[in-house]
Amino acid sequence: MNTKLLGAQDLISLQKELPQWEVQQSKLRRSWKFKDFVEAFGFITRVALLAEAMNHHPEWSNVYSKVTIELTTHDKKGLTNLDLQLAKSINLLG
Amino acid sequence: MNTKLLGAQDLISLQKELPQWEVQQSKLRRSWKFKDFVEAFGFITRVALLAEAMNHHPEWSNVYSKVTIELTTHDKKGLTNLDLQLAKSINLLG
Amino acid sequence: MNTKLLGAQDLISLQKELPQWEVQQSKLRRSWKFKDFVEAFGFITRVALLAEAMNHHPEWSNVYSKVTIELTTHDKKGLTNLDLQLAKSINLLG
Amino acid sequence: MNTKLLGAQDLISLQKELPQWEVQQSKLRRSWKFKDFVEAFGFITRVALLAEAMNHHPEWSNVYSKVTIELTTHDKKGLTNLDLQLAKSINLLG
Repeated sequence: MNTKLLGAQDLISLQKELPQWEVQQSKLRRSWKFKDFVEAFGFITRVALLAEAMNHHPEWSNVYSKVTIELTTHDKKGLTNLDLQLAKSINLLG
Repeated sequence: MNTKLLGAQDLISLQKELPQWEVQQSKLRRSWKFKDFVEAFGFITRVALLAEAMNHHPEWSNVYSKVTIELTTHDKKGLTNLDLQLAKSINLLG
Repeated sequence: MNTKLLGAQDLISLQKELPQWEVQQSKLRRSWKFKDFVEAFGFITRVALLAEAMNHHPEWSNVYSKVTIELTTHDKKGLTNLDLQLAKSINLLG
Repeated sequence: MNTKLLGAQDLISLQKELPQWEVQQSKLRRSWKFKDFVEAFGFITRVALLAEAMNHHPEWSNVYSKVTIELTTHDKKGLTNLDLQLAKSINLLG
């Protein structure tokens, strides 16, 4: 997969393609609020499986029913197609 | 929680209350088919959290997108309210 | 379980009892570094099971092989025996 | 990865290489007994991550502290290198 840094035009397209995600400095960020911890952790586990299969891992935090995920490509110091792909896969979770 | 064995009348009510579950000899049994392994394992993890919180654990098996759960109360050698409660909690998973 | 706030003397005992944890303002904090994401997430899942069974949930974050857990009792705005018990249970994970 | 069926000589080598696994008709099989459900499910979760990353999924069953895993390559109706690789990865779990 192409892992070069996304350019300015790519970032504009990306924000349109992923309206649920906030484009921060070199990061994509999204938060979720679930019914309870059981639902939140079920979601986290599904994201973990996607991430390990891509070998591209999020930064995330959780407290009870709230989950926040941040995506970046550490070795490129910014956003690449890996982040875009993982964000799209997360959006498709049932 | 009351953990005495359910009587014949209880079992008839239970089958009405839990139509998705098959009442087998001393067991409740239900199978699920998910879109893929990621969805199946997200479900499994949520059931694991419910089970540990109740300290009442299922017998279960998984291959790819298919999950089968059997509930019984081992130390009573049959079905008790613990099985009914866990089956209901599993039915409520989002 | 007694969930009143721990007093100053309790906090001193707690730091002795839990030397791996840092006592921060109203929080217990500990970080771990694992071999890889698989080991880190296996640990996270075991903590999730303990937390749900206690109905006392950590604030935690993860990136790849690093896990940080913070414990506090939100509705008491500080540390209680619930945090001490969860920290001890986490320390005992195999 | 080469996914042709292993030959008779390969199966003999495989049994030597994986003494903890039982070579059954077209299957590799191993059981584990853990301290409790928390440890058993932590293990299951790590296996789930390995399996999803390989896109090769085990048949497994669990009750409380006991886990049984069977490996086979369904679309080849027998054992292939995929099973050998997954068994080795499972053996290496910490």
